Amino acid sequence: TIAAPAIAQSMPELKWRLTSSFPKSLDTIYGAAEIFAKAVAEATDNKFQIQVFAAGEIVPGLQAADAVQNGTVEMCHTASYYYFGKDPTFAFGTAVPFGLNSRMQNAWQFYGGGMDVMNEFYGKFNIHAIPCGNTGCQMGGWFRKEIKTPEDFNGLKMRIGGFAGRVIGKLGAVPQQIAGGDIYPALEKGTLDACEWVGPYDDEKLGFYKVAKYYYYPGWWEGGAMLHNFINVAKWNSLTPTYKSILRTASEMANTAMQSKYDAGNPAALKRLVAGGAVLRPFSADVMDACYKASNDVYRETMATNAPFKKVYDHMMAFRGDQYLWWQVAEYSFDTYQIRARARG
Amino acid sequence: TIAAPAIAQSMPELKWRLTSSFPKSLDTIYGAAEIFAKAVAEATDNKFQIQVFAAGEIVPGLQAADAVQNGTVEMCHTASYYYFGKDPTFAFGTAVPFGLNSRMQNAWQFYGGGMDVMNEFYGKFNIHAIPCGNTGCQMGGWFRKEIKTPEDFNGLKMRIGGFAGRVIGKLGAVPQQIAGGDIYPALEKGTLDACEWVGPYDDEKLGFYKVAKYYYYPGWWEGGAMLHNFINVAKWNSLTPTYKSILRTASEMANTAMQSKYDAGNPAALKRLVAGGAVLRPFSADVMDACYKASNDVYRETMATNAPFKKVYDHMMAFRGDQYLWWQVAEYSFDTYQIRARARG
Repeated sequence: TIAAPAIAQSMPELKWRLTSSFPKSLDTIYGAAEIFAKAVAEATDNKFQIQVFAAGEIVPGLQAADAVQNGTVEMCHTASYYYFGKDPTFAFGTAVPFGLNSRMQNAWQFYGGGMDVMNEFYGKFNIHAIPCGNTGCQMGGWFRKEIKTPEDFNGLKMRIGGFAGRVIGKLGAVPQQIAGGDIYPALEKGTLDACEWVGPYDDEKLGFYKVAKYYYYPGWWEGGAMLHNFINVAKWNSLTPTYKSILRTASEMANTAMQSKYDAGNPAALKRLVAGGAVLRPFSADVMDACYKASNDVYRETMATNAPFKKVYDHMMAFRGDQYLWWQVAEYSFDTYQIRARARG
Repeated sequence: TIAAPAIAQSMPELKWRLTSSFPKSLDTIYGAAEIFAKAVAEATDNKFQIQVFAAGEIVPGLQAADAVQNGTVEMCHTASYYYFGKDPTFAFGTAVPFGLNSRMQNAWQFYGGGMDVMNEFYGKFNIHAIPCGNTGCQMGGWFRKEIKTPEDFNGLKMRIGGFAGRVIGKLGAVPQQIAGGDIYPALEKGTLDACEWVGPYDDEKLGFYKVAKYYYYPGWWEGGAMLHNFINVAKWNSLTPTYKSILRTASEMANTAMQSKYDAGNPAALKRLVAGGAVLRPFSADVMDACYKASNDVYRETMATNAPFKKVYDHMMAFRGDQYLWWQVAEYSFDTYQIRARARG
């Protein structure tokens, strides 16, 4: 026989399945997986093909990580914090209350040791994770009535999941887990008082402004919500160094592509929402302070019984302190001036 | 003869040379080209090798684009605004006074039409450009004396190039072009009153804090300074679709890697600088307003005689307006709270 050329060994024919946690209608977030898969196919002359499936086609969106863990699929594109119920440590991969903004989350993951500390954790679930997308800071969501003081959260039925749900629960709110398509009718009927989703570009599609016009900001529980590719560890380890590199590079490219697509699309959507009747409201200082305090209470309680959570918390929050020390100098004062100059016209 | 396999046609053996505009000592910015070249080599099983040369090894740093234009090298890694003297339109590729922040520059380039409008311009110089790196918002630089009013710029000899030099010239300053290694002695002797460089991580290496302690912010002329890979158009067109895709993906990966490395490294450098005697000072509102007005004067003058400049200016500034409309809502109010919470302890 003739020895196969080296290229055939480093670039074998492979077909993988990627299950997304998102529907195709969320074209920005679902699209990040498609951008990633296309780049991998192009880089390998179609030898490594990753087929992207929408949520529900193979498994429901919130079971994507399970499907990776048990080998049903080779990989998924998902938000790590969906698996908060398995272990709250998953939340750090995406965003935690009063955590990092989008650029800081990148810096933490890529050059701050964040990817390593998280992959040590994900390894227990048979998962190797690579960042692949960010929404930027999200909105605080849609409310039927104004929220003026922390007391206004008392008894409020709000569609909000995981960590943030536990935090507003401290203020007396009743967090609800409801699928995207069921939110609008619940708000309309009044069985739901408020909901959070993502930001203008995505929120517009679901029409919440028609039934809950107060649109609050910021979404302090997701200052820079990062998506990941979760890859089954055995499948990851079976890849050639060439393919590992290609997956990493394509993920990191798509990581920024998704953020850029949101950034480019959000302003026009925000204008349309406001023209359609949405009323923008900042959370008051009192509300923010109460949420900040409640978040720290939940952090303390969780750390008391969860050593891996404490390890990542300490790691990320030390990074956050340094990041904002620097951010407030050049970045923030530049943005401050630009915002004022724009308002002045 | 036997037909070559398809892979050999789409992934031929190639060796390119990339000249960087930067010395190896600027490991973050020079390193972005190395990260890029490594990813290309890995993705192609070393069939496409791009050798990175530091500034001066093939051509001086500020002649990198010329070397690409005339085919001396296939590509370079550079700051587009270095070529301001050829045509001020080059400045938009990197940063312009009171322009976009780093994330907005990405959004403009990738999803706002910026890459297309700029490549139409670069084409006249035989260049195809792909974003590859960002410093984030830079510092305003080092000053031997305090700058309290716009009048304090009068007669000030400042090392600052291109567009920003022309702007502060309007305020009576005398902009100077001086290579990195010559700045420190000039400040020490007093033949120079001020200089701008990049930000804490890079500035620390040159020791300016010892001879010009006032460290001003923000660098309003570079809110998010982007680097690019400039590729000779004929060489770009000669690539297979596979290689084009790999170059694009690797550039975009390195684009964010560079920003993340700066973000991760700047806070500790800032602390060391302040501990070493640097005195942080924000430009006053009066100074910022005077620079903003002077910038708009330079924009108007340039547009009056340069149609391509006006085309890109209008394109980018419309994008800027929309971006800050949205940025001030979620992102800015999140950062505002985080900065205040940190200060409160």
